[in-house]
Amino acid sequence: MAEAAPKQRSPAAPRPVRCIVKLGGAAITNKGELESIDEESLRSACAQLRQAMSDGTAPEKVRGMDWSRRPGDPADPVVDAEGFAGMAGLGLDSNFVVVHGAGSFGHFQASRSGVHKGGLHSTLVKAGFVATRISVTSLNQEIVRALAREGIPSVGMSPFACGWSTQRRNLASANASQIIESLHAGFVPVLHGDAVLDESLDCTILSGDVIIRHLAQLLTPKYVVFLTDVHGVYDRPPTDPNAVLLKEIEVDDNGGWSIVKPALEGNRKGVEISVAAHDTTGGMETKILEAAVIARLGVDVYITKVDTEHSLRALKGDVNTSSDDWLGTVIRAAK
Amino acid sequence: MAEAAPKQRSPAAPRPVRCIVKLGGAAITNKGELESIDEESLRSACAQLRQAMSDGTAPEKVRGMDWSRRPGDPADPVVDAEGFAGMAGLGLDSNFVVVHGAGSFGHFQASRSGVHKGGLHSTLVKAGFVATRISVTSLNQEIVRALAREGIPSVGMSPFACGWSTQRRNLASANASQIIESLHAGFVPVLHGDAVLDESLDCTILSGDVIIRHLAQLLTPKYVVFLTDVHGVYDRPPTDPNAVLLKEIEVDDNGGWSIVKPALEGNRKGVEISVAAHDTTGGMETKILEAAVIARLGVDVYITKVDTEHSLRALKGDVNTSSDDWLGTVIRAAK
Repeated sequence: MAEAAPKQRSPAAPRPVRCIVKLGGAAITNKGELESIDEESLRSACAQLRQAMSDGTAPEKVRGMDWSRRPGDPADPVVDAEGFAGMAGLGLDSNFVVVHGAGSFGHFQASRSGVHKGGLHSTLVKAGFVATRISVTSLNQEIVRALAREGIPSVGMSPFACGWSTQRRNLASANASQIIESLHAGFVPVLHGDAVLDESLDCTILSGDVIIRHLAQLLTPKYVVFLTDVHGVYDRPPTDPNAVLLKEIEVDDNGGWSIVKPALEGNRKGVEISVAAHDTTGGMETKILEAAVIARLGVDVYITKVDTEHSLRALKGDVNTSSDDWLGTVIRAAK
Repeated sequence: MAEAAPKQRSPAAPRPVRCIVKLGGAAITNKGELESIDEESLRSACAQLRQAMSDGTAPEKVRGMDWSRRPGDPADPVVDAEGFAGMAGLGLDSNFVVVHGAGSFGHFQASRSGVHKGGLHSTLVKAGFVATRISVTSLNQEIVRALAREGIPSVGMSPFACGWSTQRRNLASANASQIIESLHAGFVPVLHGDAVLDESLDCTILSGDVIIRHLAQLLTPKYVVFLTDVHGVYDRPPTDPNAVLLKEIEVDDNGGWSIVKPALEGNRKGVEISVAAHDTTGGMETKILEAAVIARLGVDVYITKVDTEHSLRALKGDVNTSSDDWLGTVIRAAK
């Protein structure tokens, strides 16, 4: 985290953001198959988000806000304009921000061309930058649509187009004023990991986890939820039958972290190393490091599995670590 | 044009922009059919843009930059990464900006909900705002793809997400710094008419023509091209067999305009009224008014028909009004 504070031009947030949600690439796409959405997980995540947002006055019947044709679908869209015209309000506390990963979108294009390494003088990198953005923005479009079909007033906001940029891969410029204006107007901004310009390398990939960490620092939400394809953070690969789910992790003022629950045998340092080592892509390690920065702000971070009763409770902020019936990892500041 | 200058935070453009191109909604979509792209016109416009950008060193074989699956297409994308790796450069003078209209995208959603009239306290307007943005951004995605398939390094930039906003429908904030950074990095920004926030009305529709006028004022391109579905501006509806194509219009310092070519019978005022009156949607009148503002900057504006030899000449900037073999309307400042 040894990076300069990004330049900002952000009005004060009008009311506290309730939750920043990361829809992990592994949770909402089929990682092994090029540009394939896990429709059922995405639908569940959007429906649970609506439940979490509902303030008790939301109508039971969902009125969808996607009035477009679906790709490949010749039928006219269902437009419920009359229904909306008669509604007093949505009945939703929509003060959420959604950030999603790329999963099986973008990664292929980025790795074929080396966009993350920079160097736009190379025509391959330039072409890969274009191809990567087409891929991740098409996923963004589908996620905005899925949220809108649940009646959530979602608006896509692409970090590259918003002018977010990096300096040696560290966030250098991150204008959040339009995100805040959108929240103020009652919309749910939907951002994503993106190919961006880099002041030193020409270009690189900005991950959704870094975006979340920055927005958490800026907006100080009540809690942050990472939805993924496993129940949380384990002490070794979750496929290992002896893997133990780490249910509560505390982060101290120096950024060090320790496992509070469950009580594990051996020294904690050993556990830390095996946690970090179990994901060779750096995905889970990055997630824990970014989550630790958020937790140090006093914001609880919940990591849990999409499309479960646990994800619904996390999205509602209804997580009690003293009870055993919640499956997931809580990362919070040491008291 | 009695509006305050929008707030700007824009670095100086690194080199003169060659051309700002408007892909008119009527030119690239089938206006009568909901969310239907005129694939042949769009393909032609993109291929002609590539020809116009070619600096003589571009390879004959086009290497596409869309490495994504097409919606509804199960086949893997064609990825020519090896071909790009061996290229010294694209051979394209890509210093262009593309702005497109909505055509049969967005209009239906906006008119059903009244987004242009504002009032986000109405759930119908809020839902319509979301629906309109889904529609226009899905068209943007398809246009970025079509340009990328021609090997043009296109990047989509949505005005709402970029923070463009209005005050009583007049442009109030229009940050072009990321557009300029993108041009500097060798990309072709692709913007579009969009639903945006409005300081007085909550929200409204920002048209592509207004975006073009603002970018022309800011970037002072060598020329501006409007591609549409007719040969140019006529003195009455083009469907009228007696309609005359106005080939050259001069704009004076006061913003008044007069028809230089052809020499028409009757007084010019009469012609002005009939031109303005022939399009009840205000589309052509708005276009002429915005074009007149651009022409007063000393920037020639060419209005011509997509997918013709005339559109190719316009995109190349190769228009000679003293010869009769070019069909279109030139709007320029009076000398």
